[in-house]
Amino acid sequence: MANDNIDRLLRNKVSFLTDAGPEEDIAISSRIRLARNLADFPFPAAASPEQLDAIRELVAPAVAESSALGDDFLRFDPDQLTPLECEILFERRLVSRDFLNRSGGTTLLTRSDESSSVMVNEEDHLRIQSIRPGLQLMNVWETIDRLDNRLASKLSYAFDNRLGFLTSCPTNVGTGMRASVMLHLPGLVLSGQINAAIQGIGKLNLAVRGIFGEGTDNRGNLFQISNQSTLGESEPQIIERIDAVIRQLISHEKNARRMLLEKEQYALLDHVGRSYGLLRHAYKLTYDEALNSLSGIRIGVDMGMFNSVDIKTVNELFICINPAHLRKFAGRSLTDAEADIQRAALVRERLKKVAEA
Amino acid sequence: MANDNIDRLLRNKVSFLTDAGPEEDIAISSRIRLARNLADFPFPAAASPEQLDAIRELVAPAVAESSALGDDFLRFDPDQLTPLECEILFERRLVSRDFLNRSGGTTLLTRSDESSSVMVNEEDHLRIQSIRPGLQLMNVWETIDRLDNRLASKLSYAFDNRLGFLTSCPTNVGTGMRASVMLHLPGLVLSGQINAAIQGIGKLNLAVRGIFGEGTDNRGNLFQISNQSTLGESEPQIIERIDAVIRQLISHEKNARRMLLEKEQYALLDHVGRSYGLLRHAYKLTYDEALNSLSGIRIGVDMGMFNSVDIKTVNELFICINPAHLRKFAGRSLTDAEADIQRAALVRERLKKVAEA
Repeated sequence: MANDNIDRLLRNKVSFLTDAGPEEDIAISSRIRLARNLADFPFPAAASPEQLDAIRELVAPAVAESSALGDDFLRFDPDQLTPLECEILFERRLVSRDFLNRSGGTTLLTRSDESSSVMVNEEDHLRIQSIRPGLQLMNVWETIDRLDNRLASKLSYAFDNRLGFLTSCPTNVGTGMRASVMLHLPGLVLSGQINAAIQGIGKLNLAVRGIFGEGTDNRGNLFQISNQSTLGESEPQIIERIDAVIRQLISHEKNARRMLLEKEQYALLDHVGRSYGLLRHAYKLTYDEALNSLSGIRIGVDMGMFNSVDIKTVNELFICINPAHLRKFAGRSLTDAEADIQRAALVRERLKKVAEA
Repeated sequence: MANDNIDRLLRNKVSFLTDAGPEEDIAISSRIRLARNLADFPFPAAASPEQLDAIRELVAPAVAESSALGDDFLRFDPDQLTPLECEILFERRLVSRDFLNRSGGTTLLTRSDESSSVMVNEEDHLRIQSIRPGLQLMNVWETIDRLDNRLASKLSYAFDNRLGFLTSCPTNVGTGMRASVMLHLPGLVLSGQINAAIQGIGKLNLAVRGIFGEGTDNRGNLFQISNQSTLGESEPQIIERIDAVIRQLISHEKNARRMLLEKEQYALLDHVGRSYGLLRHAYKLTYDEALNSLSGIRIGVDMGMFNSVDIKTVNELFICINPAHLRKFAGRSLTDAEADIQRAALVRERLKKVAEA
């Protein structure tokens, strides 16, 4: 039986992918998550099934009563979802693999536009997340801080005056905050400067990861930059530090793009054109081919070289090309080979629609 | 100084590429060449410059007086052409590399539609050539035989009653005829049957070569099949033998295409689609990429899977993507990298024009 809420998610616009944002030609999105725990329960890994249920039955009403996620948020209990539906939540980055692997007591509460959400009983009792398009961590912070305060008025958080928020993993103790920005850096990749840039960021005590959180993964030329430490600085201080580094990276990326346009204009046009040609005309596309080619056309759109596509369509496709989404759209199970065919059909159709609009 | 006749060649339609022909979905063209020599002169390799000039001044008027090439044929003397113009004649397969490498006394006479031509003082005094679209060697034979008879009425050929026509190289003695058909065999290549097919043809005393006459070259999935021997059979007998083999090959190719369409429809669509996407959207194309992708869309057009292009446009592009043609169109010298850019621009523009027509 299909879950109606999943259908609502898929129907609704995802605000951080479709709304405009500052520096959106390079910064895809700004995301903050807060780790919070209730004072009177053991951390999820140590809690009994009954305790996990009790936690959930405290948090869910608190979200509703505080209107922290607005009044029409959606609730997903993984134990009542099909594996495919769980996978869709993962592909939309509303839940983690860790969350899905838990044996019970988990719940996801999310605004239907996916801009704010709460995972219950992942590694911590609450993982609160807010996300916005472009580079605007401070705005995201204001949103999530308000949301957190509303929840705090209903729940008793585990807090230590000296350490700050207590969390399941010591690396999160303090602010419990992880702030990250997803950057699209094809200029630095194409010009061979990305490794130096990544090493530089590492020295600033920030982490660089690929689109799926893996360190060495540069598929789609997408990179997440986030803070490593959560202790010793206030949230705004951490955010200002990340923000300054990101702005520098964006400036490097812009320079790299300018240089490419000046010195290797045809290499760049060719990169964009081949990406578009593949997406527009292939009948089989692997996930990686689709991702890399979407990256290829995004740089063309960003640089104003290419107006057959808009950023919004590219951003949405970054999500839709994932296997569970394709299976959901097809309404049936698909082998990997069938998924490649389905992926190519979806991409062709979306790009055709935009080209003819 | 540009040669006006070269411009006329480039302006005129090339009949064998733009006219319809039998089995044109697989057989690109049927070509016959005859090697002929004058009785009273040594073969070109042994002739003095004065003798080569004398041969030329006998043959050229004979072509005019006999109307063998019609009344408005074009004449090209390589010693009065630029290297670029010589290369254009080579790329159009009106002359051979051997012809261009001779030190003097050479002339090309050709109908402006390139359907019949005579090279003077290549390996033999005369190399007469006729070509038509599709598979129609017997019609080509009738044309070239008439042309040859007209020339014979004006010239005294070296002929031996026992051996037949005498030629510079012993492998041409007898009929002096080489009949060949250019086949497009992507079905056999994609289904992995091409090597067996080529081996089978070799056993029948026929030669298989790639588009540029090299034995192992299968660029563009194009293969020339021609007779090896010129002795012991009449011209119609040789032609009938080739024709029968070619018809069998065409039938194998059709079967291979049918099987691909049945069992690997999406692989085939993908092959065609990717080829089209590359040609339509790349900004740099090497010769091999262009050739292979043109082959890729040709199979789609042939099989009725794809109507954004017509065979005529594809056939013409097979010629226009050659480097000397690109340099001629550009009106200036081009580095290889610049030629790749020029090639991509030409292909994009032609395909765009057809797609929008």
